[in-house]
Amino acid sequence: MREEEKNNLDQLFNFFREIDREKFIGRQTYLSDGMRKENDAEHAWHMAIMTLLLSEYSNQEIDVLHTISMLLIHDLVEIDAGDTYAYDEEGRKTQADREKRAADRIYGLLPKEQGKKLYDLWLEFEERKTPEAKFARVMDNLQPMMLNAATDGKAWVEHQVKLSQILKRNEHTSDGSEILWEYARENFIQPNLDAGRIREEKSE
Amino acid sequence: MREEEKNNLDQLFNFFREIDREKFIGRQTYLSDGMRKENDAEHAWHMAIMTLLLSEYSNQEIDVLHTISMLLIHDLVEIDAGDTYAYDEEGRKTQADREKRAADRIYGLLPKEQGKKLYDLWLEFEERKTPEAKFARVMDNLQPMMLNAATDGKAWVEHQVKLSQILKRNEHTSDGSEILWEYARENFIQPNLDAGRIREEKSE
Repeated sequence: MREEEKNNLDQLFNFFREIDREKFIGRQTYLSDGMRKENDAEHAWHMAIMTLLLSEYSNQEIDVLHTISMLLIHDLVEIDAGDTYAYDEEGRKTQADREKRAADRIYGLLPKEQGKKLYDLWLEFEERKTPEAKFARVMDNLQPMMLNAATDGKAWVEHQVKLSQILKRNEHTSDGSEILWEYARENFIQPNLDAGRIREEKSE
Repeated sequence: MREEEKNNLDQLFNFFREIDREKFIGRQTYLSDGMRKENDAEHAWHMAIMTLLLSEYSNQEIDVLHTISMLLIHDLVEIDAGDTYAYDEEGRKTQADREKRAADRIYGLLPKEQGKKLYDLWLEFEERKTPEAKFARVMDNLQPMMLNAATDGKAWVEHQVKLSQILKRNEHTSDGSEILWEYARENFIQPNLDAGRIREEKSE
């Protein structure tokens, strides 16, 4: 094996060992048994399969590999920055700074060209401009919503989540997929609103 | 939403809820902290990212999306069939039958065309004939080997694994990637053989 090849593989496997830590980053979503909360790696795997089977419901045609790649790697920044819960208003103020520093370090572990590729994918997800990023955001919102609904709204009740918060969080979801947003409203949100598991505040 | 569309999405989301159970299927590999063992969803996520960054090391050119798709879905059969440890000789005798029945049920939850697509991907992985399946097998062997090495051979010691078992398990690894097999032998296997964590039996 040439020395250059050996060095390249050393860098890659060093990165693969480092990202193992994504499996320790807990989220606020309960798994379907309602007992344990999900971690970032499990979340990413689930969204990748969903993309494989739901891509035809994107408003605009998308490159499936590009979208899946984005979903697989975009939460790696949380190895350093931690998970910021969707409805944690304080945490979200510092989130962008924390995640930018994390992206510099973590994607920086890779050989230059590949590090840039993953950094750019992460940035694309954050910027939410391309059809692929818009659809990836749909997955990022719908996957936990599906699990929340499957566990009788357990995480929503635990965090006393309000309908207005869910709608704000999803203000761009229909930009990625109108039909999936319609499906989510009717099948995940409305039944839990009716059951009082999502708080509706008439005054807002 | 048209009724046909609603039915299609109901089937898909029913499948997505069902496969959440892959997160409960434990493997024998310790995560990099050496404390907890990995589950199938985490394993699949890790291999998908590795494929994204290692595909150029495949002996033959591969379709990356096809390979990643195969890796993301091939262990779903273990939701019914359970994980069969690489070195569990008894379990491996009934593995093929158990997994075939599981594939029929689980991929059968999907709309017909998509169910067939995933079933065929699973079969392709099992048959190990295409360049993509050969490379996917490399990932399936190297990812746990990397973690075993990163935890000072913890799983190898725990199961008293012999070198001959590892070599048998990897008899086709070089068919997928000669260079990655060389790298794994030199960096994962040899140091743990030298340290006595993998058993070498001269008489075999």
